[in-house]
Amino acid sequence: MSNKNDMFQGLWPALFTPVNPDGSFNSSEMEKLVELLIEQNVDGLYLLGSTGQGFLFSERERKEITQATLEIANKRIPVMVQVGALNTEESVRLAKHAARLGADGISSVGPIYYGATADMAFEHYRRIAESTDVPFFPYQIGNAASQEVIDRLLALPQVHGLKLTTVKLLEISNIHNQAQHWKLFSGADELMCQAAMCGTVGAIGTSYNLFGPTCKYIRESFLEGNTRHAMEYMLTFQRFIDSILPVIWSFFNRAMQLKYNITIGDPKPPLLGRPLPWSDEEVMGMVEEIESFYTPAT
Amino acid sequence: MSNKNDMFQGLWPALFTPVNPDGSFNSSEMEKLVELLIEQNVDGLYLLGSTGQGFLFSERERKEITQATLEIANKRIPVMVQVGALNTEESVRLAKHAARLGADGISSVGPIYYGATADMAFEHYRRIAESTDVPFFPYQIGNAASQEVIDRLLALPQVHGLKLTTVKLLEISNIHNQAQHWKLFSGADELMCQAAMCGTVGAIGTSYNLFGPTCKYIRESFLEGNTRHAMEYMLTFQRFIDSILPVIWSFFNRAMQLKYNITIGDPKPPLLGRPLPWSDEEVMGMVEEIESFYTPAT
Amino acid sequence: MSNKNDMFQGLWPALFTPVNPDGSFNSSEMEKLVELLIEQNVDGLYLLGSTGQGFLFSERERKEITQATLEIANKRIPVMVQVGALNTEESVRLAKHAARLGADGISSVGPIYYGATADMAFEHYRRIAESTDVPFFPYQIGNAASQEVIDRLLALPQVHGLKLTTVKLLEISNIHNQAQHWKLFSGADELMCQAAMCGTVGAIGTSYNLFGPTCKYIRESFLEGNTRHAMEYMLTFQRFIDSILPVIWSFFNRAMQLKYNITIGDPKPPLLGRPLPWSDEEVMGMVEEIESFYTPAT
Amino acid sequence: MSNKNDMFQGLWPALFTPVNPDGSFNSSEMEKLVELLIEQNVDGLYLLGSTGQGFLFSERERKEITQATLEIANKRIPVMVQVGALNTEESVRLAKHAARLGADGISSVGPIYYGATADMAFEHYRRIAESTDVPFFPYQIGNAASQEVIDRLLALPQVHGLKLTTVKLLEISNIHNQAQHWKLFSGADELMCQAAMCGTVGAIGTSYNLFGPTCKYIRESFLEGNTRHAMEYMLTFQRFIDSILPVIWSFFNRAMQLKYNITIGDPKPPLLGRPLPWSDEEVMGMVEEIESFYTPAT
Repeated sequence: MSNKNDMFQGLWPALFTPVNPDGSFNSSEMEKLVELLIEQNVDGLYLLGSTGQGFLFSERERKEITQATLEIANKRIPVMVQVGALNTEESVRLAKHAARLGADGISSVGPIYYGATADMAFEHYRRIAESTDVPFFPYQIGNAASQEVIDRLLALPQVHGLKLTTVKLLEISNIHNQAQHWKLFSGADELMCQAAMCGTVGAIGTSYNLFGPTCKYIRESFLEGNTRHAMEYMLTFQRFIDSILPVIWSFFNRAMQLKYNITIGDPKPPLLGRPLPWSDEEVMGMVEEIESFYTPAT
Repeated sequence: MSNKNDMFQGLWPALFTPVNPDGSFNSSEMEKLVELLIEQNVDGLYLLGSTGQGFLFSERERKEITQATLEIANKRIPVMVQVGALNTEESVRLAKHAARLGADGISSVGPIYYGATADMAFEHYRRIAESTDVPFFPYQIGNAASQEVIDRLLALPQVHGLKLTTVKLLEISNIHNQAQHWKLFSGADELMCQAAMCGTVGAIGTSYNLFGPTCKYIRESFLEGNTRHAMEYMLTFQRFIDSILPVIWSFFNRAMQLKYNITIGDPKPPLLGRPLPWSDEEVMGMVEEIESFYTPAT
Repeated sequence: MSNKNDMFQGLWPALFTPVNPDGSFNSSEMEKLVELLIEQNVDGLYLLGSTGQGFLFSERERKEITQATLEIANKRIPVMVQVGALNTEESVRLAKHAARLGADGISSVGPIYYGATADMAFEHYRRIAESTDVPFFPYQIGNAASQEVIDRLLALPQVHGLKLTTVKLLEISNIHNQAQHWKLFSGADELMCQAAMCGTVGAIGTSYNLFGPTCKYIRESFLEGNTRHAMEYMLTFQRFIDSILPVIWSFFNRAMQLKYNITIGDPKPPLLGRPLPWSDEEVMGMVEEIESFYTPAT
Repeated sequence: MSNKNDMFQGLWPALFTPVNPDGSFNSSEMEKLVELLIEQNVDGLYLLGSTGQGFLFSERERKEITQATLEIANKRIPVMVQVGALNTEESVRLAKHAARLGADGISSVGPIYYGATADMAFEHYRRIAESTDVPFFPYQIGNAASQEVIDRLLALPQVHGLKLTTVKLLEISNIHNQAQHWKLFSGADELMCQAAMCGTVGAIGTSYNLFGPTCKYIRESFLEGNTRHAMEYMLTFQRFIDSILPVIWSFFNRAMQLKYNITIGDPKPPLLGRPLPWSDEEVMGMVEEIESFYTPAT
């Protein structure tokens, strides 16, 4: 198990799911994206989460995307598959499918629509966790009763950690202090280094599709003591994220196109791809400002 | 249009969706339920909402349930079909299907998983509303930016009203004051009469599957001036709802069985059917206490 | 005790505290206000609450205002004195002072600045309640742990009820259902009738300084069955309150001046008196629209 | 000005205000506390904030405490005086008093009781800020409309920074990114280092009365690159704070007594000093665990 667990750390892009103009999965662009990220040496891939629009694809499509991506990755990089769905049984089917095809980790959001009690949240996670023997990472923990849910999740051997999205860092430290063997991943890219101080061993996020090398470098050099540089980066990065937030889908689409010639395609409704207020030059200028922090010692 | 609109008022049970032990739709129990409610003279039926677990059935199942229920109702009572789904396009397909089969109203929740901006919420509602010419009733309005969403919904001719679930009654009065031609339905059963004072013309709720005649009688006699009786009822009703809340699915299942010999079946996960802390006699005693308020003048 | 308790019902203006241009208490205008309200037959007076800016006067001033007002009222109408302060001991001194001078009820907000645990809130209320033998009415109940606070307040014989400000009506019904002997006063003027359906026996509010007769008439005729008229009123009243909210201090100041020739004076900072967007004629038109609902049978 | 501003950084204990058994200010214990902290080389003192119970002393007492403390400090260490009160005019009087006696900074919370609009909050801060020429530090910013308040505060030359208490670190980075010349102090002790990554130049907190040298060492060595040690400390420190939170006043009282023979005295109601669940040995063991992280290179 310890070997297995060792892979759960570092920088994991929350993979975009490239689509064709008709909304169907575009496996050739996915191949380009996965090859790029493997080449950039990121530490793992998180498939079909919020960024990957997992919730907006049908069960059949999710299985197709999972199969294709695992085949592309071909064990060269760990892949965690997010299987959360409105109906827990659909999540269980997706988990079993991903496990059968060799996913390294399974993750799932909690109950989506109905306000979840601690009982409901735990039972939902438990059913999914116990449906396979692949390490399971609950995605976030609902606000209500989270302490009770965590206590009960700690008793499940399949749970190896959590994928957190909270921006309240004390919640992260609290969970770490209760579950030090868990592998915690933070989800707020713009608090990547601060969250590391709270016990996270890795970060899963949208930005790492575009800024994998820079973010990985900053995160690691921060942990090695390059605090001032990381601080300056984090403040710049947060200003950047703040500025793109209203057009986040369009920004990353355009930047991935310009920088890597990878087409992500329009987000599915209800997500909206709003027009960018920037020229291509401006987009590339923004990308370059972020990348200018990548200054590894030679 | 005025004729059409006249049907949107009064007491509408948020229909349970009876299922077999394997989770599949049980159309014969649905038939018994719909016949019962027609006979009890409720004012309409709200299909596949939260109570009807619309979100936990597949698209194919939702179409099957919609078709069967519309056939059973056979225009003897108005039916509004809730079509909200994670993916807006699925909602559009469900809306078109329901319209084609003769639904009297279409309703939909807003974006479910992704935090919705006003733009996202409006666009989601707009696409569904404009996909048919059946009166459309957005289900609740997200917290953020609701004023902006309402302003924009008011410009859509397909929107005839709203299905609200808020327990903050001032929000309801506010919406009524801005959109007096809209037909507003309240969703908190235990505030049914108070919400009527805020401009709602109808109530959609779970309890009305079981307590249709009593609730309809109370609501109407309240509006006719029987304030004290309605007040006593509402306080009793709220105490009742408070007591069953932790076991709400199991309570209604057992009570529908005992009172009407209708089998709703287990809720789908992540919903939980927890064991009742009461004997059958106690359940029936609780039902009878509520029904004792039904005292129409002879 | 039952006699004493009988007075705690009906419509209680949350008295303005008239001040001179230098911010000092203006007892002659207070006399005019109290005489007006006694003549208008409102049911009681609530002194030095939020409307009366109790929190913005010094301890010495609060005692002066309490003494003067109790002398003016001279037992012709019940007076409840709000004694909440940052420091509980100051509240205790104010409570003892008010009791000694003959106040009919004492009320107090919970801890103001420090986030109150259930323990803190209860101990604060308990100390004040037990410092006199005058009926005590906690003002609102903090969100956190309210059930625990209520349970413990129920064991205090000095507590005769609550002054609630919540707009979540289910909280009111819940409290009523647990404490049916308590006299509950609602604080949201624009939900006055709806709150009566939840078990409140009275209403304490700002608007009743200006609209005592109309609001008293509406509240009573609602309870007697004039539901449709009350409904129309409540919707109009809420639209009115919504429109004046950004300039609430200035509106009431001007309207009290125009209608009753009573000068309330500028609110104390941090409260702001912002310029009215309406002419005097428009202000009076708004007042008259509300008063037009006062149509008692002759 | 730049000289003046240079003092606003580093570790500032939010000073306890020692009291006698009758609740009156104990100046001799304050002298011991201030001498200790000067000797320990902390960077400044924050007087009469939440920890110092500024809100629970009378205006006269606050002036007495301010005068005594400034005399003890005698310009050997910067002192910032918190002057927030329910009534803005009281805050202005306290600000002028502190300025006259030589306070190095003035700070104030926003409006306390009345829900503050952006207008109210800004006007409150502005009046206090403009009443002296001492650098002014608004204490936190209300949730609502904070962007508008910040924009307007940026135009006030007296405002030199903020004292923040939020645990949502993105809010801190956001403010820093908008106001890079402002000196930001973080208030959540257990996020001291993480907040430094968001642009804070200092930390104001309760724990620094007891753990000044350790926290100052950790904060500085973190900034110099001792990331791993700081991380381990922050996780331990948070676990510690979590464990003492329910008895925070009693813990610090006892620990200050045991460690430094300084008597803080009972907190004023509504604050509660609850009995400690630990023996003196256990309290000292907890203190020593924290202090064991103080390992400066020799």
